[in-house]
Amino acid sequence: MVRDAEATKARLLEAATAEFAAYGIAGARIDRIAAAAAVNKQMIYAYFGSKDALFDVVFSTYVGGSLSKVDFDASDLPEYAGRMYDRFANDPASLRLSTWYRLERPQGRGLEAVVAINEARLERLREAQRAGALSGHFDAVELLSLIQAIATSWATMNPEFTQAAEPIDHARRRRAVVDAVRRLLAETK
Amino acid sequence: MVRDAEATKARLLEAATAEFAAYGIAGARIDRIAAAAAVNKQMIYAYFGSKDALFDVVFSTYVGGSLSKVDFDASDLPEYAGRMYDRFANDPASLRLSTWYRLERPQGRGLEAVVAINEARLERLREAQRAGALSGHFDAVELLSLIQAIATSWATMNPEFTQAAEPIDHARRRRAVVDAVRRLLAETK
Repeated sequence: MVRDAEATKARLLEAATAEFAAYGIAGARIDRIAAAAAVNKQMIYAYFGSKDALFDVVFSTYVGGSLSKVDFDASDLPEYAGRMYDRFANDPASLRLSTWYRLERPQGRGLEAVVAINEARLERLREAQRAGALSGHFDAVELLSLIQAIATSWATMNPEFTQAAEPIDHARRRRAVVDAVRRLLAETK
Repeated sequence: MVRDAEATKARLLEAATAEFAAYGIAGARIDRIAAAAAVNKQMIYAYFGSKDALFDVVFSTYVGGSLSKVDFDASDLPEYAGRMYDRFANDPASLRLSTWYRLERPQGRGLEAVVAINEARLERLREAQRAGALSGHFDAVELLSLIQAIATSWATMNPEFTQAAEPIDHARRRRAVVDAVRRLLAETK
């Protein structure tokens, strides 16, 4: 019985993730999530309370998973940026989730998982800088922002631009990302 | 009479821009736009045809305005990135419009204004590279993507991160943007 409940919850989270990635928080429909997961709509409210609370769980789960899915290596940020590029190329839904979150919750909710991942990464950047394994030219806050922006650069251009080159040359785009971060960190000059 | 119609249309576009920036395409309500602009809802449909067509006009107007509002200087991209930073710091609604567009129209519509601004900027980058006024290390397509990402980096982090530092030090953030682009273009090594 307990295992059934866990399986149902997992199915629900998967369906909810797809729905929120496609339509955002306001646009998501509990009806569609219930149908996709083959569960009763009332059960979703019983488990999660509300659509907004369900999004919190989905997004926190996604953010928590990011740490393990893309190994954050403060001593080799160019390759970290390359892995992040790969991740968003392979799983565009994950970037869409955080973009909806930013647009629809511009003041944030101070979600634990989001605050925790920010803090963990900043701390590792600072450690690497103290250990001399990472350039101190930009401070940790600046670095995290710049690296995330560069790693997601191709995914954040207008669709017309992104689709102008077909088929997309992922190896080449990834190379540009890795190279750009390498240049940010170069000690020369 | 003609001037009245023009004034009404301008008021409508302003109200529609605010509504779309706040709620996106699916979330925007023609009722609210009509109320904010003090016009009849039917008139909006008569002028523009549909909510989607109204968004096209709003977004094309915004994109068209970008060219003139932030002077694109291919021979000084670090300062161009700094001006772009200023623009989005002063007018967050404009970046929200293009983010909604990307999320809600992932395949794009091939909007004339969007295609035109992409092409115009790429052409100016290529010209500057041919003239030797701009590093050829990255090609024009890579450069445009990287520079836009860096200029908007602070505006695209999660809200928790963006708000962690209060008050926000805009001069410092701008400096990081300008400096990052300068490093991308440095000829050294």
